Amino acid sequence: MRILALCAMGECDMNENVLDYDTVAFDEEKQAIRIIDQTLLPNEIRLITLQSQPEIWEAIQTLRVRGAPAIGITAAFGLYLAALPLRQLPVQAFLDALQQAKGYLSSARPTAVNLGWALHRMEQAAQRAISAGTAAAVTAMHDEAAEILQEDIRVCRQLGENGLTLVKPGWGLLTHCNAGQLATARYGTATAPMYLGAEKGYGFHVYCDETRPLLQGARLTAFELSSAGIDTTLLCDNMAASLMKSGKIQAVFVGCDRVAANGDTANKIGTLGVAVLAKHYGIPFYVVAPSSTVDLQTPTGDEIPIEQRSPDEICEMWYAARMAPAGIHAMNPAFDVTDAALITAIVTEFGIARPPYSQSLQEIILKKGRARQ
Amino acid sequence: MRILALCAMGECDMNENVLDYDTVAFDEEKQAIRIIDQTLLPNEIRLITLQSQPEIWEAIQTLRVRGAPAIGITAAFGLYLAALPLRQLPVQAFLDALQQAKGYLSSARPTAVNLGWALHRMEQAAQRAISAGTAAAVTAMHDEAAEILQEDIRVCRQLGENGLTLVKPGWGLLTHCNAGQLATARYGTATAPMYLGAEKGYGFHVYCDETRPLLQGARLTAFELSSAGIDTTLLCDNMAASLMKSGKIQAVFVGCDRVAANGDTANKIGTLGVAVLAKHYGIPFYVVAPSSTVDLQTPTGDEIPIEQRSPDEICEMWYAARMAPAGIHAMNPAFDVTDAALITAIVTEFGIARPPYSQSLQEIILKKGRARQ
Repeated sequence: MRILALCAMGECDMNENVLDYDTVAFDEEKQAIRIIDQTLLPNEIRLITLQSQPEIWEAIQTLRVRGAPAIGITAAFGLYLAALPLRQLPVQAFLDALQQAKGYLSSARPTAVNLGWALHRMEQAAQRAISAGTAAAVTAMHDEAAEILQEDIRVCRQLGENGLTLVKPGWGLLTHCNAGQLATARYGTATAPMYLGAEKGYGFHVYCDETRPLLQGARLTAFELSSAGIDTTLLCDNMAASLMKSGKIQAVFVGCDRVAANGDTANKIGTLGVAVLAKHYGIPFYVVAPSSTVDLQTPTGDEIPIEQRSPDEICEMWYAARMAPAGIHAMNPAFDVTDAALITAIVTEFGIARPPYSQSLQEIILKKGRARQ
Repeated sequence: MRILALCAMGECDMNENVLDYDTVAFDEEKQAIRIIDQTLLPNEIRLITLQSQPEIWEAIQTLRVRGAPAIGITAAFGLYLAALPLRQLPVQAFLDALQQAKGYLSSARPTAVNLGWALHRMEQAAQRAISAGTAAAVTAMHDEAAEILQEDIRVCRQLGENGLTLVKPGWGLLTHCNAGQLATARYGTATAPMYLGAEKGYGFHVYCDETRPLLQGARLTAFELSSAGIDTTLLCDNMAASLMKSGKIQAVFVGCDRVAANGDTANKIGTLGVAVLAKHYGIPFYVVAPSSTVDLQTPTGDEIPIEQRSPDEICEMWYAARMAPAGIHAMNPAFDVTDAALITAIVTEFGIARPPYSQSLQEIILKKGRARQ
């Protein structure tokens, strides 16, 4: 892992804008993935390059790069980098080694479907080209990863356009965790309507849940939205109820890590609670989901595996001292599943799915299939 | 502020039990209030004494002592200490100075009704005795403060007995913030059924919301319950929804800072959200309220003043580095109001109030009046 740029806030240009950098990019000259190390935000904008497979795995696992789409892009270039030194192998050995590398990268995090989805696309690209030899397969993989990145930018822009049809200028919008530019190649998913609205002068008031335990809302979302000049207010997760009760929130926008065929949606821990609150207060709750996160193979949320992380993230991480007694039991699920019944609509790049989702999501996937033809 | 005892966890007796110390006590020899400095928990159990008025005000304001009942006890002894040097004054000057001291102490925190309630009781005790002179008034104030403390212990025990009638052995119980022994003289309010249940071998599984931003659930509740050998699990506030969905919670118990005449209840920020979730999942939501927190003079929750605290508590307090971008707006209400309609019952020492609260709370206060006669 090499550090490319180092800028401690306050020590260099205070106008440093996190949006000036790509969340994830591929450095063609160095043949390496370049990411913003998100574990250091908002205190330091540090760009790092990832080249070896353990570096890439570690960056995904420890959330240096996070957010379902950004994980997908990183994994895609990661598998390309894994394939590069395998070019000299015979075809079957190449494919076997690729399969192994795919298994390794996909083990970095279990919940986000994009990780598996991107790796699957990469493998298919290799297999389509393999009749022309392993070198052709590797080139095809490079191009597929680059396409996944470019697609993400186009998709997020379209998510923003579609999401914008659901809101009015001046609205108060609540979001949870970071489904922002820092989770994607550009625009974000849940934040895409906010960025596009800002371009059009919509004057939104955006409220960001800080999102314990890893504080993605405070460290990332509040950071990137305020960097973009959007009126942004930070709150602790447990303040959302009184905020909604006060009438300041007209809509909730969240991202997602996986949408099951029935519309049940896995997203960052705490999303379910926000959805229940929104239902109680009659506030529309929108999930912004690139179609790549729709997983028709998973019938309901019950079948989505939920990553359990270390209690240390709750008891001591970030803190100057321990904040819980030594030896205390702590639960730390990274995600929860929001029941389809709590979701007003699921915004995809192919349109807005409404209940019943078992039908509307299939239609979205059909549209997607037709768009590919 | 003098330090009486210092015990950094890990540096001295590791069996150090926070419950071995009184949350708040009066040192007759030194004529000083002795408290556990709760801002240092769970890393250090430090007893400090408070003597001057600014020391007492600061300890309440910065939450060295917190929890409505413990604040009331501290303020009561605080007003006695204010009165001590005033003994030589003529009666009217004594009463005027006392009035001023009362105003000063009551300004430390605005939401908890116990602060004003305890100071009012102290003033009444002084006025009842003032015909016998200022020295007699000061003695009466001493005895009144001691009685407020002893009453708190009796009341909390009775809250526990009454709360215990609402639960069954083996239940999973969720609590928010610290309405524990550390918020009272003994037993706590919301925790009283847990402690009494533990005495009777009920085998509860207690889940503690960490309670951002000041982490009273992690630092205090998880600490005191696990110290007492109760099976305790810590969670981030935003995990309560998935915990309830999993079926592990059979009842919620929370404390309160003020109950309005219609049953609306102010308690630590986040309580409202827990109540909405409990309603959604069909889980009974109990407020445990000493009758001193019932304020029939406040018609509804809309009239309860909500303390706004510094954004620093969200953005940087406790942390090794800032966790939110510099200059970000942050809301930080210390409390929220849970609508009466979300509350299954309000447990007092004079019985369990059920909806409609406008009637049942009046009956509780009538019972209280009769008990005093």
